Parts: sequence; C-alpha cells; structure tokens
Amino acid sequence: MSECILCKEDGGQLVWRGDDARVVLIDDPDLPGYCRVIWNRHSAEMSDLSRVEREILMALVDVTEFAIRRVMRPQKINIASLGNQVPHIHWHVIPRFTDDPFFPGSIWSAKQRDLSDLVRKARRDSAKGLADAIRSGIADLA
Amino acid sequence: MSECILCKEDGGQLVWRGDDARVVLIDDPDLPGYCRVIWNRHSAEMSDLSRVEREILMALVDVTEFAIRRVMRPQKINIASLGNQVPHIHWHVIPRFTDDPFFPGSIWSAKQRDLSDLVRKARRDSAKGLADAIRSGIADLA
Repeated sequence: MSECILCKEDGGQLVWRGDDARVVLIDDPDLPGYCRVIWNRHSAEMSDLSRVEREILMALVDVTEFAIRRVMRPQKINIASLGNQVPHIHWHVIPRFTDDPFFPGSIWSAKQRDLSDLVRKARRDSAKGLADAIRSGIADLA
Repeated sequence: MSECILCKEDGGQLVWRGDDARVVLIDDPDLPGYCRVIWNRHSAEMSDLSRVEREILMALVDVTEFAIRRVMRPQKINIASLGNQVPHIHWHVIPRFTDDPFFPGSIWSAKQRDLSDLVRKARRDSAKGLADAIRSGIADLA
C-alpha cells in the first residue's frame, strides 16, 4: 500500500533481506540491539499469511532471538507483533536488561530511568556483532 | 519453580489445557477477549524450547488469533511474549479496537480513554463465544 511506511522503506538499518521478509536493526539510543523482522508484502495480521509463510517468518524471529541472546546476553527477550499504528506485519525482537530505561515494563510503558552513557556505549559496542550473527543464523536455516 | 505464579496457578480462566501448554482467558474489564497461551513447563525464553516445542506453542497462538478474529472481529490483533515480570513463557493474544482504552498504543502504554459500559457489555457478550472457538480450533489441529 502506497501510504504504508514499511512498504516504502526498509524500516531500519537493513541486516538481511529475502524474498519474503527482512531483518533490520533499530537505532534506538535507549535500546541498543533492538531488531525488527518485517514481512515484505503488505499484510496486517499473522492470520493473513499461509501456514508456510508464518513458519518462514517465525523461523526468522527465532534466529534473531538466538543471535541477540548469544551476542548481547540480555536478562530477557521481548517479542511482539502489535501494528496498531503501522498495520504491516513486523515483529519487535528486543534485548531487555534490568537497567534499561523501561525494565520491568514493556518498552511502550513509561520510562523509569535513563541509561548511563557508559552502559549505552558498552551495549552499542556489543550490538555491533549482531548483524553478522543474524546473517549467519539465517544462512544455517537453508 | 515454586515462586513462579504461572507454575502454581492457571493464570486466568482455563479454556484448554494440553500436555505442553494451556490457553486462558484474562478477566480484564478494559480488554474483553484478552487471551494468554502459556507453556506449562517453567522456561523463560522461546529459545529455551526445542524447535518442535516452539512450533506446538505457535500453533496454539495461531489458533487463538484465528478464533479471536472470527468471534470478536477486532480492528487489530496484538501478540506479545514479554515476561519481564513473570519470566515463564506466556503469549498475550489481544483483540484491539480503535475505541479501546489504549488504542493505538500498546496495552502497556498510558490509558487514553475509558470504555463505555455499553461497548464493554457488547464486547463481553461477543467474547462468550471465544472459549468454544479456541477449543474447536485446537481440536482441528489434531
């Protein structure tokens, strides 16, 4: 759909793009390592996809989660497909740390604290390994 | 784990329970039809499950989504696995309406409006068909 931002743009720093879906890194200063897995075709709901398409998409979400855990060692992973504002299927895959600005709330909840510059830098440094880890995980799917 | 609430309790009104997982209805006055799909064994992350286990769990999430759409006709479905406060795998599957208290925010975002009593009653009435629709969808998986 021409007015949909995820139909027009990658929606983040492109890590990998396949025929069906892509993985991007989100440049959020509060949440280094935040990824999204985006279905390429405009569809609003998982239940609009075929069973095979859902499996393809969730395999990419799984790979992204595995890579984030291995590279960033977060205390928790958050996964969500909301799309209330952009109804084009995209999965948020987010490393969560007990000292991040929103923990233990969702990243859409009220901010509870600031991230220190030191921690932000360390976390951004560790996130540098993420794109390669995701691509390598996707290569192993084939 | 003995201190985990989802190890001790169903975690909602039980709709269906299998060997691996269960589906419950959440009694949230703001969000009639709100369901959770909960893994029975204590595990924190999807990536702690085997591939087969992840497929079993996501098939139940899919069935729940399909049932909610068919029965409640929401404007959007929200799906999320967060677990920052209760790190025992549970998927939120939530019917969203443009007039619900949080739309277009997440249900963990600030409340934007109240649900009218009339709409709440109508939505609770339509949610009454949900348990049967979910059980019927799960029976069709076999």
